[in-house]
Amino acid sequence: MPVFMIDVLPADALATDFDATVRRVADGVPTLDVRDLGPSRGDGVFETIGVVGGHPQALDAHLSRLANSASLLDLPEPNEAQWRHAIRVAASVLPADRQGGLKVVLTRGLEGSGAPTGWIVASQAAGVFSEREAGIQVVTLDRGYASDVAQRAPWLLAGAKTLSYAVNMAALREARRRGADDVIFVTSDGFVMEAPTSTVILRFGDRIVTPRTDIGILPGTSQLSVFAFAAARGFHTLEAKVPVAQLAEADAAWLVSSVRLASPITRLDGAEVNVDLELTRAMNEALLAREA
Amino acid sequence: MPVFMIDVLPADALATDFDATVRRVADGVPTLDVRDLGPSRGDGVFETIGVVGGHPQALDAHLSRLANSASLLDLPEPNEAQWRHAIRVAASVLPADRQGGLKVVLTRGLEGSGAPTGWIVASQAAGVFSEREAGIQVVTLDRGYASDVAQRAPWLLAGAKTLSYAVNMAALREARRRGADDVIFVTSDGFVMEAPTSTVILRFGDRIVTPRTDIGILPGTSQLSVFAFAAARGFHTLEAKVPVAQLAEADAAWLVSSVRLASPITRLDGAEVNVDLELTRAMNEALLAREA
Repeated sequence: MPVFMIDVLPADALATDFDATVRRVADGVPTLDVRDLGPSRGDGVFETIGVVGGHPQALDAHLSRLANSASLLDLPEPNEAQWRHAIRVAASVLPADRQGGLKVVLTRGLEGSGAPTGWIVASQAAGVFSEREAGIQVVTLDRGYASDVAQRAPWLLAGAKTLSYAVNMAALREARRRGADDVIFVTSDGFVMEAPTSTVILRFGDRIVTPRTDIGILPGTSQLSVFAFAAARGFHTLEAKVPVAQLAEADAAWLVSSVRLASPITRLDGAEVNVDLELTRAMNEALLAREA
Repeated sequence: MPVFMIDVLPADALATDFDATVRRVADGVPTLDVRDLGPSRGDGVFETIGVVGGHPQALDAHLSRLANSASLLDLPEPNEAQWRHAIRVAASVLPADRQGGLKVVLTRGLEGSGAPTGWIVASQAAGVFSEREAGIQVVTLDRGYASDVAQRAPWLLAGAKTLSYAVNMAALREARRRGADDVIFVTSDGFVMEAPTSTVILRFGDRIVTPRTDIGILPGTSQLSVFAFAAARGFHTLEAKVPVAQLAEADAAWLVSSVRLASPITRLDGAEVNVDLELTRAMNEALLAREA
């Protein structure tokens, strides 16, 4: 897993030599100070970007979400040109014939320094592809927040992709304890949210639906690509506030994310869910098409 | 700030040479792999321990809470004897005539390794002492969770002191935006919780009250010491479910934590709060007494 440390530049820095700010690290060499606010407070933001044929997919959507997360955390605005360059450098070391992923991280840096820390971890994707055919079993878990939380309490950072993912990881462990593979979080007032590391997509007849982000969830980058694919196939695509009870009425359901792509849900809280394997395959083919 | 990396031993390891597992790091040398689940997922637990005269205060309470946090996160049980030793080593490098603090961290380590990462950062306390006399202005902020969240949804890790503190840090920034110094979190159903890095203590006449931990907050280690002090002074001490409205009726209020000790609240949401300076001074003297 190649690691790149980034000398984070201010947003307005017009460097022409971004290469000098991207440093590949020898395997296993530690590069992070334990006092950095990333490791000590989970105080930072990240993106996971799929790589196909050496190409970082949905890059604009990821850079836009990274900037939005940074803004929600009052972090310095990322230098888009620098990150775009660094991401391309990191993607280029992955084998062109394999799918891969990049984890792009920006922390608040050392306390009081005002200097963020940045890094990218590049990895070959492995092991999740069978899910795209075999599907996944999912349980719903209460996320504890009401659907108006992002408006009412922005300090809870709903909608920011922060490094503080301990709850997301604990929810996945709870799913495994229940014999399932993954989780759909629901609001305390009964609406469908998102998975700990994926977006929920539902099909109802000729409509492809994803939960509205204003209930305090992340805008999905792969979900955007799925919507473009679905619209091209003649589906009506929409963001909606989806009551939990409607999950049982879906004609098909998926969790989608940048590296796993679309995994069809076969069981939800133990009940069978209809799988649209043809549509799933076409969806994943679309997601796997190397972007121009 | 001296940093010590710990070779984390299993709970049942009966090493006699714990010294070999505690390695002091040269200043500023990075020791953490960015792929560690601490920095990449906020997936770990911590304690902040006050040090007085080279002595780590309330050590049993901190070790107990660390073990409880680890258990809530399904981390391997910490080796109590090892951590006790490492904490004493780290405390011993702090100047004996100054107050200090230790940040003790245990992460899940590299993904799939099953080997946790541990470290301790020792630092001299500075700058917060004036609060003990001048007091602090506090605002209440909604934590988004109902008071039954710990029972209903244990995967939300309420009551675990995790590294995922991005929300706590964001709440402190929100307080500063509102012209205040700190925050009291309240549940969505209107009960007093805790501060982002401190415990709430209230005086009502001859009663000293702190919020019950079963509403999804951390057991306070300094709060235990304050209760021992208060009981010795003839106060009735109790844990209670405190409605937010009762905050305005308190005869005095404090935020307490291991390094800041007891800071009296002078204003709450803009309204003046009575300050009991004599009691505050006695409380801080008690907290500053080097334990046997």
